[in-house]
Amino acid sequence: MGEISRDLMKALLIIAHGSRKQSSNDEVAQLATAVASQESGFELIEHAFLELTSPKVPDGIQSLISQGATDVVILPYFLAAGFHVADDLPKLLSDAQDQYPDVRFKLLKHLGAADRMPNWIIQQSEQTG
Amino acid sequence: MGEISRDLMKALLIIAHGSRKQSSNDEVAQLATAVASQESGFELIEHAFLELTSPKVPDGIQSLISQGATDVVILPYFLAAGFHVADDLPKLLSDAQDQYPDVRFKLLKHLGAADRMPNWIIQQSEQTG
Repeated sequence: MGEISRDLMKALLIIAHGSRKQSSNDEVAQLATAVASQESGFELIEHAFLELTSPKVPDGIQSLISQGATDVVILPYFLAAGFHVADDLPKLLSDAQDQYPDVRFKLLKHLGAADRMPNWIIQQSEQTG
Repeated sequence: MGEISRDLMKALLIIAHGSRKQSSNDEVAQLATAVASQESGFELIEHAFLELTSPKVPDGIQSLISQGATDVVILPYFLAAGFHVADDLPKLLSDAQDQYPDVRFKLLKHLGAADRMPNWIIQQSEQTG
């Protein structure tokens, strides 16, 4: 496949808030590694933080694009739609779209708003409970 | 079934941090309602908050037990294991166990540590992305 030109390279960026507690940030990094080991349609999966630690969101986006991403899907790893999810992220995405007009960006709902969250909560509570 | 004595009544308490933003707290309440509408082995499903709003955790536990719960499973609806998850919740549970010695309490891992979380993230990202 080495000679086939790549038309599309889909990437996933998992965005967390960022914490002063390094172990919380490490937990996000480990989770992103675990997500990347899943079967999926994403060729690149990385994480970034809004605040307090790095990599920050613009750096995460730049990293994916420098590796060839043509489509960047952004998942806010948040349970509630606070100001970060409602205001900060759309602005960061708008800036990124201005900077990379040829890349397709897609901002997903925050994880807590996933349609399947009620089912996941039951799965988790019954599995372990 | 009115005359059959109940030996076991399993309840789930979903615990969120609590926010100054009322819409975030409402989101948790709506989620708990959605979880309660799922098929599950829990006869009672309610939510409570650690801070900033009510119902607080001890009130949530008291509510479930007053309705007959004999087994209370506690799911920390948190993505990261901060001090709340690591310290505050075990202490609250220990107090509750002292207060209700006949009730079986079980504190689950926080949701972000669920074994299936990497799979859920892919599900959510591919479904919508």
